Amino acid sequence: MSGPVRSLKQARQIREVFGSVQPELLEVEAFLEHELEGALPMVQNVAGWVLGGGGKRIRPALLLLISHMLGYRGHRSIRYGAVVELIHTATLIHDDIIDESEMRRGRETANRRWGSQAAVLVGDWLYTRTMDLCLELGDVDVMRVLTTATLRMTEGELLADEVRGRIDIGEVTYMDITRRKTAELFAAACSLPALFQPSTLHLTGSLARFGINLGLCFQLIDDLLDYTGSADELGKPAMADLLEGRVTLPLLLLLPRLSSEQRGRIERVAREGTFEAIGASEVMELLRTSGVLEEVRERAMRFARDAVTELEPFGDRPEAVALRKAADLLLDRTR
Amino acid sequence: MSGPVRSLKQARQIREVFGSVQPELLEVEAFLEHELEGALPMVQNVAGWVLGGGGKRIRPALLLLISHMLGYRGHRSIRYGAVVELIHTATLIHDDIIDESEMRRGRETANRRWGSQAAVLVGDWLYTRTMDLCLELGDVDVMRVLTTATLRMTEGELLADEVRGRIDIGEVTYMDITRRKTAELFAAACSLPALFQPSTLHLTGSLARFGINLGLCFQLIDDLLDYTGSADELGKPAMADLLEGRVTLPLLLLLPRLSSEQRGRIERVAREGTFEAIGASEVMELLRTSGVLEEVRERAMRFARDAVTELEPFGDRPEAVALRKAADLLLDRTR
Repeated sequence: MSGPVRSLKQARQIREVFGSVQPELLEVEAFLEHELEGALPMVQNVAGWVLGGGGKRIRPALLLLISHMLGYRGHRSIRYGAVVELIHTATLIHDDIIDESEMRRGRETANRRWGSQAAVLVGDWLYTRTMDLCLELGDVDVMRVLTTATLRMTEGELLADEVRGRIDIGEVTYMDITRRKTAELFAAACSLPALFQPSTLHLTGSLARFGINLGLCFQLIDDLLDYTGSADELGKPAMADLLEGRVTLPLLLLLPRLSSEQRGRIERVAREGTFEAIGASEVMELLRTSGVLEEVRERAMRFARDAVTELEPFGDRPEAVALRKAADLLLDRTR
Repeated sequence: MSGPVRSLKQARQIREVFGSVQPELLEVEAFLEHELEGALPMVQNVAGWVLGGGGKRIRPALLLLISHMLGYRGHRSIRYGAVVELIHTATLIHDDIIDESEMRRGRETANRRWGSQAAVLVGDWLYTRTMDLCLELGDVDVMRVLTTATLRMTEGELLADEVRGRIDIGEVTYMDITRRKTAELFAAACSLPALFQPSTLHLTGSLARFGINLGLCFQLIDDLLDYTGSADELGKPAMADLLEGRVTLPLLLLLPRLSSEQRGRIERVAREGTFEAIGASEVMELLRTSGVLEEVRERAMRFARDAVTELEPFGDRPEAVALRKAADLLLDRTR
């Protein structure tokens, strides 16, 4: 199956899995639009640009599906679905400044289009505005979950920034960064619905674990796709992580199996940001023949399996079935 | 009186005015230290660098003095004194990235010393952490005041960024930006103490007005000092505002009194960031002979007067007397 056909199939499958929450996903979109309509022009420009960039709204979709599963049908799931997407958006905006990225999802990044100055400020505005959106309902417990997730994400980025360009970071550091950077917001999105009704409060922990494991699976696949995906599928240059000095799991598993001369050449790529010391196709060949790509996929599968274990109490409820399919789709996605 | 002697005198006067809250200001410092001790190394580096840069802690001092005036002696004034200073710190860190500043208070800026990447993230971390510090006590009303002030500040910076390099911005826009950028956080610092006890809730509005007016006075003097202060007193290059394309009140009042040829030359400085089209001493001469420097000072005095009007209900209580002196000091300061 060719790349474009896979993408098409995948988009349809995602719509199917999250089919039961489509009406509410549209309400989340309307909420986001309404938020931007009331904002300053530059907030509309930058946030509108990033929100309109073809994101899959996975976090709000998970939040909505889990809200259904818990029997919640109030307006909080719409609001907080929008809030997690806004936090995610703020993170993307600031991350692209930090990485000095020029492309995301096949388009210019916000910092390139509107300048880093505006991008810093709009990110700040979005973070603060999300707190306001929680305050409007006085949902202190929701805020606690979200500020904690935001702090962890920022710490993840700080740790990642600290080890940038280094190939000796070790798996523990990599997993710590991945958990903070990606999995914590998944955990927040998945566990917040438990806070919407007193009767489901006891489910917070297991839903957070579902989210953490799903988030780890998601990020591992992302890191894998950075190597195996085409620039077209990724919407940014292939091997962007390595070029930006970010050593992820595929490389971490590969490095100990290389000669010190090969390691040295890969280190130069991470440090110099060009494929001068060793070509991209050569790196790819090493990854392919060493078997580490399958290993990363296996680890991602293990996290997906750990995630769905947390769904056991919900048996064969349609939402639990959909969430299991969602985990499979995250594993199989091309970008 | 020479510059250094004035600075010395001024530092002593500030200590005198805020003398009654010195013990609590030290507790605020201890709170800030404790906060940093628990943070990631890069947060310690960046935030410690900026917090240790010789700031005068005016916002916490006002908050503490007003807490005393309202008869509040609990621990909230320490915590929220630290919180407003942390918000202020986050703003400084992000502002210096946006302005690409290299010097603040006579030292390198955080972005220059630790890199813009780390500075973006540490600013984010501080903003989010301040929300956490409010959440720990469940103070939803305090959070509301602080998130609103933070949103307004960010909007002020966005508006300022939009008009950067333009000399035709008009006083209404300038005052709107100034109010948001500076006065809103003063208003928050001054009005929060009213929320600490139910019996003082009705004072929130008048204390917020006190803060707004004091903040406007503060910023007008700051904008004036950017022209009249020496680089030594300012801890950054003189006329930095103009060089960074930020047209403030002294220039706004001057421009209509110039020939279009002179205006054109000043516009070039704002746009090009160098004194090629007209020399700094020539700009200074125009400002001096036109009388606008006195006009700006008079306006600042008017805001100070409007501020202290709000203190009337507190008569001659020692804290009200000290706050009036604080307003005088802000007017008279050299940096």
